[in-house]
Amino acid sequence: MAAIKVYGNRESLATVLVLCCLNEKELQYELAQVDLGPAGAQNKPQYLALNPFGQVPTIQDGDLTLFESRAIIKYLAKKYKGQGTDLLGNSLSEQALVEQWCEVEGQSFYPLASSIVYGTFVMPLIGGSIDRDIGAEEKLNKVLDIYEERLSKSKYLAGDFFSLADLQHLPWTHYLIDACRKDRLFTSRKHVNSWWKDISSRRAWKMVEIPL
Amino acid sequence: MAAIKVYGNRESLATVLVLCCLNEKELQYELAQVDLGPAGAQNKPQYLALNPFGQVPTIQDGDLTLFESRAIIKYLAKKYKGQGTDLLGNSLSEQALVEQWCEVEGQSFYPLASSIVYGTFVMPLIGGSIDRDIGAEEKLNKVLDIYEERLSKSKYLAGDFFSLADLQHLPWTHYLIDACRKDRLFTSRKHVNSWWKDISSRRAWKMVEIPL
Repeated sequence: MAAIKVYGNRESLATVLVLCCLNEKELQYELAQVDLGPAGAQNKPQYLALNPFGQVPTIQDGDLTLFESRAIIKYLAKKYKGQGTDLLGNSLSEQALVEQWCEVEGQSFYPLASSIVYGTFVMPLIGGSIDRDIGAEEKLNKVLDIYEERLSKSKYLAGDFFSLADLQHLPWTHYLIDACRKDRLFTSRKHVNSWWKDISSRRAWKMVEIPL
Repeated sequence: MAAIKVYGNRESLATVLVLCCLNEKELQYELAQVDLGPAGAQNKPQYLALNPFGQVPTIQDGDLTLFESRAIIKYLAKKYKGQGTDLLGNSLSEQALVEQWCEVEGQSFYPLASSIVYGTFVMPLIGGSIDRDIGAEEKLNKVLDIYEERLSKSKYLAGDFFSLADLQHLPWTHYLIDACRKDRLFTSRKHVNSWWKDISSRRAWKMVEIPL
């Protein structure tokens, strides 16, 4: 089987998400580095032909070219269901709850987490203001209160099995804690804290070499 | 087969999305009205027990309680694949492209579309400012340029078949056009315009009684 080609960059958290999924699925991959620096390789015609949005990552698996990190990991989890960690759940109800919590990540967790990371880590690095994340942190506290309640009833978000929904939280939570020092968001909640310790100690996650 | 119970409100575009999907799948449903007015029934304990985020809609199908509209329609499309319109695609590659364009809607189209609708329609109604959507409209123009290119090559977003990815665009595009008079965003682009005329004339969409 030919290795899956990943066009991306480890500085992109969406790329990191896909690499972690590939590790969970025990799949071979080849990382084709896309230089996100001033050269902006992601906006050159050659890359835009793969992904017109000029975002990383994009994968090629055989004849299929695919972008959007959350769609990519869903595809990998489905195509290689029998290999590595199953990330989808078994019954239709389990799979629906995985989808539900994936959507919660995409629509409720990620917009707030990324706003905080940009506000407190990225913008100061490039000389911007840090004001914009104050509302986001308050809202994220409320979201994590709901996670705490949920995780008091099941070991992982979608049930008692690790799934795509948990996986999707790894990159941005890592940055919230390690780049933004927002540990308290997680350590102050008993079940969220246990969940984070559990999922962030997975081998597939540790294998991803993140610059930070 | 017992009817699917939908807790929601036709004033919620996420509810409208689920109702349209139920129509495409030719499924019976019962709409349990959640009053989003000052009473805020969505924040009462009875509803929060179904959906801790206090958002509509939530569905109950047999033993399963499910929220997040995009997860709900994926569940319906999968469980009832053989009934009504197939919305998932057949091969794994087709299904992956459906997921990809669903993610584009959730992460690129929806945040901009909702910002414009709130800025130019909802906020003036409740006495707010209309400034906040100016940047959003410029960004949405760029996203729709990519749609135009894509729709010059395939009839629908994920390929030559109507799918969840197209369906997800119905409610917010309807509001952009009918509530915000942003027709030009769509009519100024040949293929986007044909696509919109096509998908918005579907019977399943016309059957949804939207207040606007």
